[in-house]
Amino acid sequence: MASETVPFCAAADWGTSSFRLWLLARDGTVLGEKRSREGMQSAVAAGGFAAVLETHLGALGAAPDLPVIVCGMAGAKQGWVEVPYVDAPAPFEAIAAGALPVPGVARDVRILPGVAQRDAARPDVMRGEETQIVGLGREGLVCLPGTHSKWAAVRAGRIEAFSTFMTGEVFALLAEQSILRHTVGADRDALAHAEAFGRGVEAGLNEPELLLNRLFALRAGPLLGLSEGAEAAARLSGLLIGSEIAGARSLLPGERSVVLVVSGPLADLYAAALEVAGFEVAKADADAAVRQGLLAAAECCFPIETETRS
Amino acid sequence: MASETVPFCAAADWGTSSFRLWLLARDGTVLGEKRSREGMQSAVAAGGFAAVLETHLGALGAAPDLPVIVCGMAGAKQGWVEVPYVDAPAPFEAIAAGALPVPGVARDVRILPGVAQRDAARPDVMRGEETQIVGLGREGLVCLPGTHSKWAAVRAGRIEAFSTFMTGEVFALLAEQSILRHTVGADRDALAHAEAFGRGVEAGLNEPELLLNRLFALRAGPLLGLSEGAEAAARLSGLLIGSEIAGARSLLPGERSVVLVVSGPLADLYAAALEVAGFEVAKADADAAVRQGLLAAAECCFPIETETRS
Repeated sequence: MASETVPFCAAADWGTSSFRLWLLARDGTVLGEKRSREGMQSAVAAGGFAAVLETHLGALGAAPDLPVIVCGMAGAKQGWVEVPYVDAPAPFEAIAAGALPVPGVARDVRILPGVAQRDAARPDVMRGEETQIVGLGREGLVCLPGTHSKWAAVRAGRIEAFSTFMTGEVFALLAEQSILRHTVGADRDALAHAEAFGRGVEAGLNEPELLLNRLFALRAGPLLGLSEGAEAAARLSGLLIGSEIAGARSLLPGERSVVLVVSGPLADLYAAALEVAGFEVAKADADAAVRQGLLAAAECCFPIETETRS
Repeated sequence: MASETVPFCAAADWGTSSFRLWLLARDGTVLGEKRSREGMQSAVAAGGFAAVLETHLGALGAAPDLPVIVCGMAGAKQGWVEVPYVDAPAPFEAIAAGALPVPGVARDVRILPGVAQRDAARPDVMRGEETQIVGLGREGLVCLPGTHSKWAAVRAGRIEAFSTFMTGEVFALLAEQSILRHTVGADRDALAHAEAFGRGVEAGLNEPELLLNRLFALRAGPLLGLSEGAEAAARLSGLLIGSEIAGARSLLPGERSVVLVVSGPLADLYAAALEVAGFEVAKADADAAVRQGLLAAAECCFPIETETRS
């Protein structure tokens, strides 16, 4: 069967600092794509979400009545339209059903909700990752690495529980603003120092209570000639990711496989760390997952009354 | 017996960002004191260590031949004279014996070494804290909180092992530069929110593997109305100190008492956290400890051939 060529909807993943837009056919075929740094923050500054969206839709030649489905921080309080969170355990259908239309625009634009974990001991929120998880359609332990890495336990078509780890943000702060900046150089390719990275992962996994100490050791080691400064970035990255995995595995104790949803250089890094931790890793492409999740939501939001499939 | 009034030596604790100088009698009586922000970094910029030292000694009316004993970062590679580390396990006498004279100055100035832990798995360094530990003259587990908290295991007149934790620096980075700055306000008085602080300590102690997750929860909790933003600084402080204690207690497993060497607001904070962790706490004044350690070193460095005690 040939791929479809008629746009069914436009789909946007609108984060804090990035914007991605696709024109999608009914079967998921990508008919057009735009990416920019016009995330929530700059979209607000640049004259509004509607203007940014229409500019990119125009450039893709989208019809004026093509509906648009959006996930991510565009639905946050500081975003375009605040869309209340769906509470975990969150059934996939409830996420699509929670979408809200954007008022005051000619086009039919719906923004998907995030998911909230209203547990006083483990409060957590996500906006955007839930759509990747829905699109993935997999069960078990799901890891979405990033500035704020998310781990989710998915069962029976529901996001049962999840945890966010500030791994990426803490790495950047330590590497660039702490005393470690004198040791951690510009070479951030942790996998070029795979052994040091692996030792960092093991230390983070096995003795997470020593994290704040091992950070200082990243400086003391090269100072005493006991380790290479060039390895410090790899060791730091390993330590933090190891600590993250140590914490995250308690979400589904005993589970030995993880679906790793990621694009770019973090894919290999997290895969290597998860293997050190003894996990069986299945990689999934983050872009494909979010498109699939947006498409599934669009099918709920924009039902086709009379459809003729070619 | 009356306190002595004749200066025996001047004693300086010269750190990265602070300078403290005392005129001390043979029995430890403080005959004069100066404090400034002219630490290693600004002393170098301000025309040199000798000029800074002589200015303050002159203001205290010190005789031109009064000897001076110095500890701290003045002995680092980037300091006044690099004084090689004494290796741990470090006997107290070896620290005084490792002092080096400053060449090219009229006055007899000796700078004490720091201590190095040349263990590839736990490399560590201290410069200044060893003098506090010597001055303390106590055995067991010693905690010196700060930007880089130090914990030492002291036995039979030796610093056997020690660990540095980047607790204070990580707190400042997270509170001021991370996404948590939107939650952690200017109110940093953790003990004004003692219950939240204590819960943070317990979380850090009992589940250190969740540190990077609990950081994010500091933001998610108030966002979901599950905790007070005003408590976030206390919770953050507790989390980090709890994690530090969880790691540090392995230095002397089974030890249930700690000597806490500290001045200022950290004293009560750490005492409270250590009590949550089940430690019996003995507080010692950091300034008194360093003066006592400098005096003990001065007695070795500047022996009095014929002494007449009053």
